[in-house]
Amino acid sequence: MATTQNLPPVDQRHHKAFDSISVPERLLLGPGPSNAHPSVLKALSLPPIGHLDPFYVDLMGEVQELLRYAWQTDNRLTLPMSGTGSSAMEATIANVVEPNECVLVAVNGYFGNRLVDMAGRYRAQVETIEKPWGDAFSLEELELAVEQYRPSVLAMVHAETSTGVCQPMQGIGELCHKYDCLLLLDTVTSLGGVPLFIDEWGVDLAYSCSQKGLSCPPGLGPFTMSPRAEKKLERRVGKVPNWYLDVSLLNKYWGSDRVYHHTAPVNMNFGIREALRLLSEEGLENSWERHKKNAEKLWEGLESLGLKLHVSEDLRLTTLTTVQIPEGVNGKEFNLHLLNNHGIEIGAGLGSLAGKVWRIGLMGYNSTPENVERILNLFKTELPRFKENVACAA
Amino acid sequence: MATTQNLPPVDQRHHKAFDSISVPERLLLGPGPSNAHPSVLKALSLPPIGHLDPFYVDLMGEVQELLRYAWQTDNRLTLPMSGTGSSAMEATIANVVEPNECVLVAVNGYFGNRLVDMAGRYRAQVETIEKPWGDAFSLEELELAVEQYRPSVLAMVHAETSTGVCQPMQGIGELCHKYDCLLLLDTVTSLGGVPLFIDEWGVDLAYSCSQKGLSCPPGLGPFTMSPRAEKKLERRVGKVPNWYLDVSLLNKYWGSDRVYHHTAPVNMNFGIREALRLLSEEGLENSWERHKKNAEKLWEGLESLGLKLHVSEDLRLTTLTTVQIPEGVNGKEFNLHLLNNHGIEIGAGLGSLAGKVWRIGLMGYNSTPENVERILNLFKTELPRFKENVACAA
Repeated sequence: MATTQNLPPVDQRHHKAFDSISVPERLLLGPGPSNAHPSVLKALSLPPIGHLDPFYVDLMGEVQELLRYAWQTDNRLTLPMSGTGSSAMEATIANVVEPNECVLVAVNGYFGNRLVDMAGRYRAQVETIEKPWGDAFSLEELELAVEQYRPSVLAMVHAETSTGVCQPMQGIGELCHKYDCLLLLDTVTSLGGVPLFIDEWGVDLAYSCSQKGLSCPPGLGPFTMSPRAEKKLERRVGKVPNWYLDVSLLNKYWGSDRVYHHTAPVNMNFGIREALRLLSEEGLENSWERHKKNAEKLWEGLESLGLKLHVSEDLRLTTLTTVQIPEGVNGKEFNLHLLNNHGIEIGAGLGSLAGKVWRIGLMGYNSTPENVERILNLFKTELPRFKENVACAA
Repeated sequence: MATTQNLPPVDQRHHKAFDSISVPERLLLGPGPSNAHPSVLKALSLPPIGHLDPFYVDLMGEVQELLRYAWQTDNRLTLPMSGTGSSAMEATIANVVEPNECVLVAVNGYFGNRLVDMAGRYRAQVETIEKPWGDAFSLEELELAVEQYRPSVLAMVHAETSTGVCQPMQGIGELCHKYDCLLLLDTVTSLGGVPLFIDEWGVDLAYSCSQKGLSCPPGLGPFTMSPRAEKKLERRVGKVPNWYLDVSLLNKYWGSDRVYHHTAPVNMNFGIREALRLLSEEGLENSWERHKKNAEKLWEGLESLGLKLHVSEDLRLTTLTTVQIPEGVNGKEFNLHLLNNHGIEIGAGLGSLAGKVWRIGLMGYNSTPENVERILNLFKTELPRFKENVACAA
């Protein structure tokens, strides 16, 4: 047999005797991942079964149905991509964008810029409309831009993880229908935590992640596609220029044919099935209300400590809050202090907000009054000491 | 705040009250996934930590080093892609293939055809050399084709999961160097179970999966890239036409810069770190020898039952055996019988071997004498009964 061929000796230079894994305890109050629900972790560790096992095939249907509820959509093509949220983001672009078509991206943060990058790689003619990081777009601004560029796709971010802004969605779906353009929406930091109505809002393509509002570890990218977007995919000339994320192939596995495409990440799907089940058990309205109450408690507490929030109250996400770093404080050092001495992760600023804000997430399982109190107490006791330390060190 | 906008009522049609997840016990003796090692499942269920946490950053380095050992390579760019093996497969193509370049694919099974499909999507001029499913390529055949097509990349499969063939690799690396072409190798069903020497064999790009020889659930795609392939990536005109799998971006996260790219699937990485640690603890030579012994026991047993193996002994994979379905037996019904009545999954044939072979995997944690005896006993007791049933029903 094949292994009896002449073989070289095994090189031991990269052979390392590492210990078994042990992980420090962390409270993850950054932009994600958030802590996972214990029963989700338990589901993750169930023994794997085959990706074509009848039991697994049933589970796939359950995950799809639970995702439809979470997103409030009837879309047939609603499924978790076998990668993180970024892979689902790329899937929305890869499937519907054809070369030289105009994609208009509304950029008011880091993830808008990522959409620009991705659309360019799929050879779109990319146009942008921009707003400062921390602001949102008005319907009028969007309409002017759509009228000017007549895009095939308007791509925008519902919940900007880099800024903490929640984009008001009223009228945008109607606008896109009027101009025969698909509406593509980033819901990475809203799914499960913030009111979200894919069908009511006329959204044609959306993506999210597993590790924020859903209380599951990162590794899956929920994806949904409307019948309008499906039609565009059917009409496209040539294959989708991305095999792994090709929805026309994935549809044959997730649809009734059950044709093998790739080996599904079965354990991650066990996890997200439990995470979505828990969301369904709590009920969307209750989850949204819980996120709202805890966010309001955080905002009040931070403001009572004299801290300034980066986003005006009417545009604030309840899942992620951006706090301005006070003058004289090295934000990164405070992050490290919380992590190393208190086991708490909060996020640093990204892009144009780097060094200017902290990002505090209260998402899914982590959106509790106890966590709000814990982080507020640390801001109260540690931040002043920290300011002094910084002053002494200077 | 944003959630006080006018909102429609929540639609309850997709609200389902599913029970908590429970999974049937399965012995997975198909082409993968294989059963995961219990300590890998335990690692998977550890609480997640941040993808930029210093602890996680250390763990990434450990995973890379353990992968280098498993693959026998010094390649700096050795890392698990955040998707299944198929995503790593696509990553090898996406990063080095530029439009209109010639990619020569050696096709002797299902996964060779998939390489053809993928390379075409990246706008390569794809040429193929073909052999029957169950056969391998001689060095002479490959040299003739390389001389004829002068490809930039020769893509081939070390361990064809669809046929059970192990491609002899002697001389192929030298051939590719002689013709200044990169050697791209599918090692999905060989990594961890079958002798594999990336650097000694002159392989420039390879990919694998987590759920076979490594005894981890599916969800990560080990990927490695030689300095020669890296240089080709550096020289390429324009961006890699795939954002998620762009190694020039991933390198900034996995390299010393630690620049955020996407949120890593941290729990899957906990799992693969433990899986690779176990492989390192056992030692590659011991793991290869174990797979060989158990495969030989399986082959002997099957042949003593009068069954025919599809691949000649000198080309047989020790991780995956293809068994010809005897005349008069409906292979699919026997698969279902084993699954439903004995909790054992074996694989059906793919592509041109559909309906003609079963695929029996003995991979990683599952390659044990006990599992060989269990499956042999079932072939002994159930297959004859099954044949009779089929005859009666006919």
